[in-house]
Amino acid sequence: MEGLISEPESLRALIEALRCLPGVGERTSRRMAYHLLQHDPNGAARLADTLQRAVEGVRHCRLCNGFSEDELCATCSSSRRDASLLCVVETPADQNMIEASHGYAGLYYVLMGRLAPLEGVGPDQLQFDRLLARACEPAVQEVILATNFTPEGETTAHYLSELLRARGRKVTRIARGVPAGSE
Amino acid sequence: MEGLISEPESLRALIEALRCLPGVGERTSRRMAYHLLQHDPNGAARLADTLQRAVEGVRHCRLCNGFSEDELCATCSSSRRDASLLCVVETPADQNMIEASHGYAGLYYVLMGRLAPLEGVGPDQLQFDRLLARACEPAVQEVILATNFTPEGETTAHYLSELLRARGRKVTRIARGVPAGSE
Repeated sequence: MEGLISEPESLRALIEALRCLPGVGERTSRRMAYHLLQHDPNGAARLADTLQRAVEGVRHCRLCNGFSEDELCATCSSSRRDASLLCVVETPADQNMIEASHGYAGLYYVLMGRLAPLEGVGPDQLQFDRLLARACEPAVQEVILATNFTPEGETTAHYLSELLRARGRKVTRIARGVPAGSE
Repeated sequence: MEGLISEPESLRALIEALRCLPGVGERTSRRMAYHLLQHDPNGAARLADTLQRAVEGVRHCRLCNGFSEDELCATCSSSRRDASLLCVVETPADQNMIEASHGYAGLYYVLMGRLAPLEGVGPDQLQFDRLLARACEPAVQEVILATNFTPEGETTAHYLSELLRARGRKVTRIARGVPAGSE
């Protein structure tokens, strides 16, 4: 936009930085920045603090690849889960949906994405070798593929089932109609 | 939601803190938090930094009430503006719209809101006494009310025009059809 009033540099930097949020363009980011500075500076300071703590403190669970502050997440280190079942989901949100159904007591593996060749997301980006190593551990008796019923999710499930069956693993696909994610 | 996997505490705090952004509910804030941690930790760290700098560095210009890092904003301290004209707008975004039209060379006063009694926003919240003091400075020859053409904006303009005329000020209302804001 031409002819704008000259915004303070730190305000301009904030408007630019807010665009790292998904779905936030320049117009929304400016509205967010004005709102925070005008109406909620305390909320903005708290957000700055929590962002920093999360970026520094949250990593991926060694077993399931989900978010965790420790080497193992609470689910993977629980003694009450059935370690013979491994359910593969796309995202933590999908994992939440399955947990909310109270119908599954096994463990998870969180892909943090799905195959999407057109977006440059292939087996390497999703670290399929990590998943395969995890799924081939002796304790795992069955791998349940619970990727979404989108074209990408179906492709991911198909591709993974081939890889897992070639390694002698028992593979099932979650049934349609079961809470299956947030797509 | 019941039955959620236990999210790391710092992730949960981030999801909660993101809700300070306008229009962001729990679902969106969770999506934003997952996205930042998974795909853009650098963007998240930059956002944390700019938030902190903006909250600490940005204040209100002593004359126009707009955002500024200094006591006076760049517009108010410019020698090229016509100090006899004072244009009253609701927000910095409205000020931007008028600047973008290149048709105005006077100064501004930014209300940072409009009268909305049902939301608890009255003359005190908008610091009308500050605006009146500014508008009654001898250099000001004319006050142009450029609040939006919404019911609240019209009410604000009407109320202000009464107060200003009672103090002997020349008051005009911006014409409809001129770029008049972002409502």
